[in-house]
Amino acid sequence: MTVRNPPPVGTPAAMRVLNQRAVLDRLRVGGPATRPQIAKDTGLSKPTVGQALLDLERHGLVRPTGRTTAGPGRSAVLYEPDPAAGYVLGVDIGRQRIRVAVADLAGSVVARVDERNRCRSASAVVREVKELAARTVSDAGLSFDDLVVKVVGTPGVPDPRGRALRHAPNLPGWERPGLLDDLEAELGPGLVVENDANLAAVGERAYGVARGVDVFVCVTVGTGIGMGIVVDGRLFRGAHGAAGEVGYLPWPGAAPDGEGGDPRRGQVEAAVAAGSVVALAGRHGLSVRSAREVFAAAESGDERALAAVRDEAERLAYVVAAVVAVVDPELVVLGGGIGSNTDLLGEPLRAALARTTPLAPRVVAGELGDGAVLAGAVAMGLRSARDLVFDRRGAVTL
Amino acid sequence: MTVRNPPPVGTPAAMRVLNQRAVLDRLRVGGPATRPQIAKDTGLSKPTVGQALLDLERHGLVRPTGRTTAGPGRSAVLYEPDPAAGYVLGVDIGRQRIRVAVADLAGSVVARVDERNRCRSASAVVREVKELAARTVSDAGLSFDDLVVKVVGTPGVPDPRGRALRHAPNLPGWERPGLLDDLEAELGPGLVVENDANLAAVGERAYGVARGVDVFVCVTVGTGIGMGIVVDGRLFRGAHGAAGEVGYLPWPGAAPDGEGGDPRRGQVEAAVAAGSVVALAGRHGLSVRSAREVFAAAESGDERALAAVRDEAERLAYVVAAVVAVVDPELVVLGGGIGSNTDLLGEPLRAALARTTPLAPRVVAGELGDGAVLAGAVAMGLRSARDLVFDRRGAVTL
Repeated sequence: MTVRNPPPVGTPAAMRVLNQRAVLDRLRVGGPATRPQIAKDTGLSKPTVGQALLDLERHGLVRPTGRTTAGPGRSAVLYEPDPAAGYVLGVDIGRQRIRVAVADLAGSVVARVDERNRCRSASAVVREVKELAARTVSDAGLSFDDLVVKVVGTPGVPDPRGRALRHAPNLPGWERPGLLDDLEAELGPGLVVENDANLAAVGERAYGVARGVDVFVCVTVGTGIGMGIVVDGRLFRGAHGAAGEVGYLPWPGAAPDGEGGDPRRGQVEAAVAAGSVVALAGRHGLSVRSAREVFAAAESGDERALAAVRDEAERLAYVVAAVVAVVDPELVVLGGGIGSNTDLLGEPLRAALARTTPLAPRVVAGELGDGAVLAGAVAMGLRSARDLVFDRRGAVTL
Repeated sequence: MTVRNPPPVGTPAAMRVLNQRAVLDRLRVGGPATRPQIAKDTGLSKPTVGQALLDLERHGLVRPTGRTTAGPGRSAVLYEPDPAAGYVLGVDIGRQRIRVAVADLAGSVVARVDERNRCRSASAVVREVKELAARTVSDAGLSFDDLVVKVVGTPGVPDPRGRALRHAPNLPGWERPGLLDDLEAELGPGLVVENDANLAAVGERAYGVARGVDVFVCVTVGTGIGMGIVVDGRLFRGAHGAAGEVGYLPWPGAAPDGEGGDPRRGQVEAAVAAGSVVALAGRHGLSVRSAREVFAAAESGDERALAAVRDEAERLAYVVAAVVAVVDPELVVLGGGIGSNTDLLGEPLRAALARTTPLAPRVVAGELGDGAVLAGAVAMGLRSARDLVFDRRGAVTL
């Protein structure tokens, strides 16, 4: 990634860069505008704005988007940030599916791929991600060079020193040393690897149910369980990146049922994630192979499935009550293949919470469903991409 | 509280205030210094520094503290911030004791009182706090007018709208509406009421074992249980001030023993705080009246007491494991009448943690013992008092 050196502070070139930046920021925040409107909003003179727009347009950072029609006087050209100035790649690596999206700088997804994850090894997953990414980029009519930032969401906690993921027992071989290097070798520079539950929280805050909420948690329950925590509007990762690893909440008393067996799985993960829903259904006499079947059966009124769902809601209430006692969030967002079934889980969950804790949290379903992680990957990518494209292309020095 | 209006920005008077501020900040951060040293460090001219020192000294904000002796040339006057420019009052209201301290702006405690809390009603506590505060202030040779900020630590969560404390079941009547007004009526303006466990965290970060640690929790276990959370070096209070109310962590399975009975007490508080230690000892055949007696008996080798301590350590490990799965702190500080017995609790606690969670936290005893809350109250008070005295006394306009 080559970033130009900015011109020395205080020079005319540096002033010009600052002015371009002010004009671009105005267009990003306030929407399309004419030269006089930008001058008014930024306090810059009209000629300065004109020069900045010329510079920005020449470098593909803004583009004309039409002309004003209403009002007296001549119509004027409206400018907007050029969405094609750069692209971000978002990837969601899950045990069940691998999802990839490419979005332009305006945040519009221009291509998307969603495939079942049939890989049986970490190497296979890395190759598959590369292949799906290449297909998505090609579908969009782009090349890898157009991608300014790539954000990959995955179970586990990225450990920058070991270049590996920790606490990712649900993907075979996924904790092996050097895995982050392997991903980077396939996807190239500009890669960010982030915990998937964290990205789901970022997604729900950017585009979903947590818009404008400054202190909330997003609990994702599917094959595993994870949680993203937002504090003061920003992702809180803890001291070692493991904040929100609620799969490791202790589950006192008898060993929980569920899949069991793997000591690297947390106690609560074994008790609450997908495998346990199947086990709970079995306990009520319903033999199924997936949690999805349990919820489908409950939807159609099967009493055994409904009993399993109530048990699951009790267990989920335990997790939510624990989180609320520590974090005191404004909002608890539930997502993931299990967690998003709030039509069935909601009522018994709220009843169990009311019995458990006086700190009554507001619990809602995520709005983005199984697209939350991918949406978060794109949102996180856009944040740095917008700065990066300016740094790379903006600094016009005559 | 009257704060002077600052002079208009850009005027000579405003510049003079800025210069005074720069000189004072230099003395606070860098220690005593001479006029030329201050000029060098701030970039101000020596005459400007001289004028600022004159202004600050005239208003009691700095004072000469001696002369330089070493080095060539004439000796010069050393200046320091005047510690007597203002005072803060710190109060720690506990179920067992009420502690009060007055500190000067340098943070030195100039008077301190520590009395058993024999009050049986909220009104009695409020009166007692007022009386102890008056005694402490008088011991220091001061009057209430010298107190710039008063910080009161108490169990419970201050609710600014209801002017009351929520979640404070351990002090009789302490949740009654308007209690915060009653405290303010007795103690006067400049009052801050803060959760005691939060202040213990602030204290340990300012003066104790958590100095320089940016992400940590401080778990206080005594009559009740509470926790202060520090994120990015600042207290994290959650969306409604209830972050860290770990007494409300759920305790699944059989109802815990301990005192029980009061539904407003959290499940974990009932299972882990002082009453439960007495109950655990009873279960092992040791009849005592206080947790302190249990730890004393364990200290002298009583097997029944040691068994109770091991049980308590297991329960505490559950709390720590839950907190660590959510917050991922760099450090877990244990304090309070129970929690500070890390000589006895430490080993079984660490063993239980190792069995419970792969997120191995560093668990240490607080350094401030039962003075942590009071130290935190003073530290929090000093932070705003230093700004307030300048705003009130500094702005010299000829």
